[in-house]
Amino acid sequence: MTRRVAIVGGGSSGLACIKCCLDEGLEPICYESSNDIGGLWRFKENPEPDRASIYHSVIINTSKEMMCFSDFPIPAEFPNFMHNSLIMDYFRMYADHFQLTKHIRFNTKVLQIKQRSDFSRSGQWDVETENKDGKREKHIFDAVMISIGHHCQPNLPLHDFPGIETFKGKYFHSRDYKTPEEWRNKKVVVIGIGNSGGDIAVELSRVTKQLYLSTRRGAWIVNRVGINGIPIDMLFNRATRLIKSILPFGVLCALAERQLDHRFNHALYNLKPKHRFFSQHPTVNDELPNRILSGTVQVKPNIRRFLGSSVEFEDGSIVEDVDLVVFATGYKFSYPFLDSRVVSVTENKASLYKYVFPPELDHPTLAIIGLVQPLGAIMPISEIQARWATQVFKGCIKLPPAAAMLRDIKCKQEAMAKRYVASPRHTIQVDYVDYMDQIAELVGVRPRIMRMLLTDPQLGLKVLLGPSTPYQYRLRGPGKWAGARQAIFTQWERVAKPLQTRLSDEPKPKKASKWPLIMFTAAVGLWAYHHRNNFPAFLQDPTALLDNIRAFLPSGCKFP
Amino acid sequence: MTRRVAIVGGGSSGLACIKCCLDEGLEPICYESSNDIGGLWRFKENPEPDRASIYHSVIINTSKEMMCFSDFPIPAEFPNFMHNSLIMDYFRMYADHFQLTKHIRFNTKVLQIKQRSDFSRSGQWDVETENKDGKREKHIFDAVMISIGHHCQPNLPLHDFPGIETFKGKYFHSRDYKTPEEWRNKKVVVIGIGNSGGDIAVELSRVTKQLYLSTRRGAWIVNRVGINGIPIDMLFNRATRLIKSILPFGVLCALAERQLDHRFNHALYNLKPKHRFFSQHPTVNDELPNRILSGTVQVKPNIRRFLGSSVEFEDGSIVEDVDLVVFATGYKFSYPFLDSRVVSVTENKASLYKYVFPPELDHPTLAIIGLVQPLGAIMPISEIQARWATQVFKGCIKLPPAAAMLRDIKCKQEAMAKRYVASPRHTIQVDYVDYMDQIAELVGVRPRIMRMLLTDPQLGLKVLLGPSTPYQYRLRGPGKWAGARQAIFTQWERVAKPLQTRLSDEPKPKKASKWPLIMFTAAVGLWAYHHRNNFPAFLQDPTALLDNIRAFLPSGCKFP
Repeated sequence: MTRRVAIVGGGSSGLACIKCCLDEGLEPICYESSNDIGGLWRFKENPEPDRASIYHSVIINTSKEMMCFSDFPIPAEFPNFMHNSLIMDYFRMYADHFQLTKHIRFNTKVLQIKQRSDFSRSGQWDVETENKDGKREKHIFDAVMISIGHHCQPNLPLHDFPGIETFKGKYFHSRDYKTPEEWRNKKVVVIGIGNSGGDIAVELSRVTKQLYLSTRRGAWIVNRVGINGIPIDMLFNRATRLIKSILPFGVLCALAERQLDHRFNHALYNLKPKHRFFSQHPTVNDELPNRILSGTVQVKPNIRRFLGSSVEFEDGSIVEDVDLVVFATGYKFSYPFLDSRVVSVTENKASLYKYVFPPELDHPTLAIIGLVQPLGAIMPISEIQARWATQVFKGCIKLPPAAAMLRDIKCKQEAMAKRYVASPRHTIQVDYVDYMDQIAELVGVRPRIMRMLLTDPQLGLKVLLGPSTPYQYRLRGPGKWAGARQAIFTQWERVAKPLQTRLSDEPKPKKASKWPLIMFTAAVGLWAYHHRNNFPAFLQDPTALLDNIRAFLPSGCKFP
Repeated sequence: MTRRVAIVGGGSSGLACIKCCLDEGLEPICYESSNDIGGLWRFKENPEPDRASIYHSVIINTSKEMMCFSDFPIPAEFPNFMHNSLIMDYFRMYADHFQLTKHIRFNTKVLQIKQRSDFSRSGQWDVETENKDGKREKHIFDAVMISIGHHCQPNLPLHDFPGIETFKGKYFHSRDYKTPEEWRNKKVVVIGIGNSGGDIAVELSRVTKQLYLSTRRGAWIVNRVGINGIPIDMLFNRATRLIKSILPFGVLCALAERQLDHRFNHALYNLKPKHRFFSQHPTVNDELPNRILSGTVQVKPNIRRFLGSSVEFEDGSIVEDVDLVVFATGYKFSYPFLDSRVVSVTENKASLYKYVFPPELDHPTLAIIGLVQPLGAIMPISEIQARWATQVFKGCIKLPPAAAMLRDIKCKQEAMAKRYVASPRHTIQVDYVDYMDQIAELVGVRPRIMRMLLTDPQLGLKVLLGPSTPYQYRLRGPGKWAGARQAIFTQWERVAKPLQTRLSDEPKPKKASKWPLIMFTAAVGLWAYHHRNNFPAFLQDPTALLDNIRAFLPSGCKFP
């Protein structure tokens, strides 16, 4: 049986890997090339090569109840959208509580991971490491988990910008941006309207003489603050997901776009993209509309070329005396320590079963953890991937034959190509609940809602109509956590708690709106209509509800 | 006849005064104590005593089409909500275009203004000035316009904060705040949730370790970006105003509050005040909800006391190691150069007819211009006040008898007391359209909508259902401007223009929503119902429409 597991990277995914190995009685050793945990989320004044780096003011765009590890809720008094320093506090609490740090070898870089010569029999790996003194070591592991994230290598496509070599101002990738002070009263161009580009543009626009935000495609802009001030990611649940499965893609997009246009008309603001809302990873930015309306951020098209200190855009407009250009052009990922025959990455595409397992190894003893870009939070996804992977390592769960896995990968890639704008940014997209449920099903921890509605209806309703918080995946099966039910019952209290910083004798508002219930009822009605000749089947197999509905969708491929 | 007019202050109101004097063939001389125009809006690195001062990032909270002078639209390419530097650009254009600057004596302070000994006969004033070399001069004027604004003297109520003398951190009034850099990683408390307090809190919260926003009453928070991204002040018009006149105050507030709570629940965010929406000057802030949800701004109650470097709040909570306290506690106004028998100010209350004329002078040759805090923009209000005042100076318009003016003032004060939270902040409140219409009626320039609907229906509909832009007061009567109609027809183009900075082949959105029309129709229906036995009266006197409806309101006093 697999015993010793190497984990590469001590960021959020790495911590989840260690925790899951310990839960499953495995022996994890985590190699972290820096001197601390936290990965991406640890603010560093000076960015280091091949390592993610964030700016000082970064606030996460997933809310605390949706982003926490499933058996370790974030303290009630922590704010709903946390500053990076608080995210680090949470990771440290997690590491301390489960005593994870002692399993980490800091300042140790992984140079090479390769299959042992007897791999086809043993499934083992040779791992070569180097510590900060340059001392190299070789180790043998029964399994490997790679959790280095996908924000290591900045994507700096200078070749797409003619004349950049003549540019007299400064330029750098968004990872090198830290604070705005230096750019007071300067002219700055930010390229790219992803989350980094939007955030940096808004922040710089408070100090610059003028900020230009260059975007090729435009974008749909989403708020952190949802209806009634609820964190936006808590407004979606299994009921809305059901609606989403039923409605045609175009209708679904139109509904979302209408809502976003109600906040600010994307066409009027010249941000409206040609693609639909669900065809691009959304940009989350609460302040951008205001900054555009005040002209402090000016939206511009793609850059045609640089000319000395001038920037010419594709509409022919020219901005002169530009002091800084920030390339918020995203990241690439790669696994230089891994033989490309094990995992090959081309244009940010890796051939992995459910984004985790290379499908053609003789033994499934290598897993990539956290290589997803979710519509939702990544931490619980890494965690459930790690729960799955450790079960697979132990042999408790078998993977399908290679051919089936390859078919699944191909199918998924086709679905992605159909739905998303072709871009290196859209190679690892997943929808949070869909993907979580799918992996949870494999692990045997997917919540059984129909059963719950009968045996514990209060809980069942909360799971069905409340936000799909990660605790839902600790209610049963391997890794079941006794505190999960209570965590679900108190989740709204933890949302309200950090806001209660001022005495108020006003009555508190109701916690959630009625619309998920209305939508769910509508969905069930529609489903019932489709199944009007087929009721007994449903009654015989309540868990098949979702899959039955999917069968009526036009698309042949299922999303994960 | 009045000829020479002294104008005190060369800010936005002073410029309007000069312009209106010139239009009426008067001879203005404007005394400006600094070396430049712009008053409040001119950013100065170092605040000076008795002079307004703003922070670097200030963006106005009224949109360009609503805040411009009525015969000088803001350039199409200027953004809708302008940074202070652009507001200055606009003022300079205005001063250049109408050649106002040559009438200004810079670096000249007004020391004293008093009635001449023969005032009861001549109505003239002695004005004593001092230039920067200390040279004093005396002048005789036929009339005086005082346009020094109401943001000169910071209100710093230290006596309300026990222990402030023991406080080890730094503290200052919001007027002394310039940029956030100095407070990176510090703990800051901002006192007051008015527009300055909200803005400064949001800005500082991007750099501070923690920002606490202390508010005694809470506040309703309004966005600059209105429905569909339209500047919020352009969403209100004569049709919505009609609704406002008809609906009971409580219902009106409930509608507004429901809308604001939809954006974020003020009770959940612990900002909900005890008073109703229309009972307080609203705080405009697009970013505050997001900053609160991310915990970077923590809302706190009033401060109970200071203790060394700690701050204790009224709920007993204590914040230690506070580095800075910003008193965003507003301003006081006074006229030290004026005999208190002419205008007396007590607790920010001055007894002025329509906020302009001291009611008990023998001759109406002194006017206070711009002493209003409007729900809307102040520049067009100052301008129409100046148009009125110059007409009164010339004798073209007579004021009512003193007793009638005093009754009107008392009535207005009672209405204010009834509607607003008792506070020095709410002594000079006016509603933009109501007040503009009232003064315009006196000047003879109030738009005659019913007549327009018959003679120029396109224009009539735009005036009725479009935003109440200042151009509407240049369509007829003294000061009629030939460009007014065209300015009204192109107002939405000037809203869209600054946003069109990126090529887009998407169709442009419709300019305004249908709801003003719907609401107007509803209002007319309601009005018709009230008047069902009385139609001929309305047909005989179309302009009495609004006043007729007001007669049905429960309140005995009319709002201005």
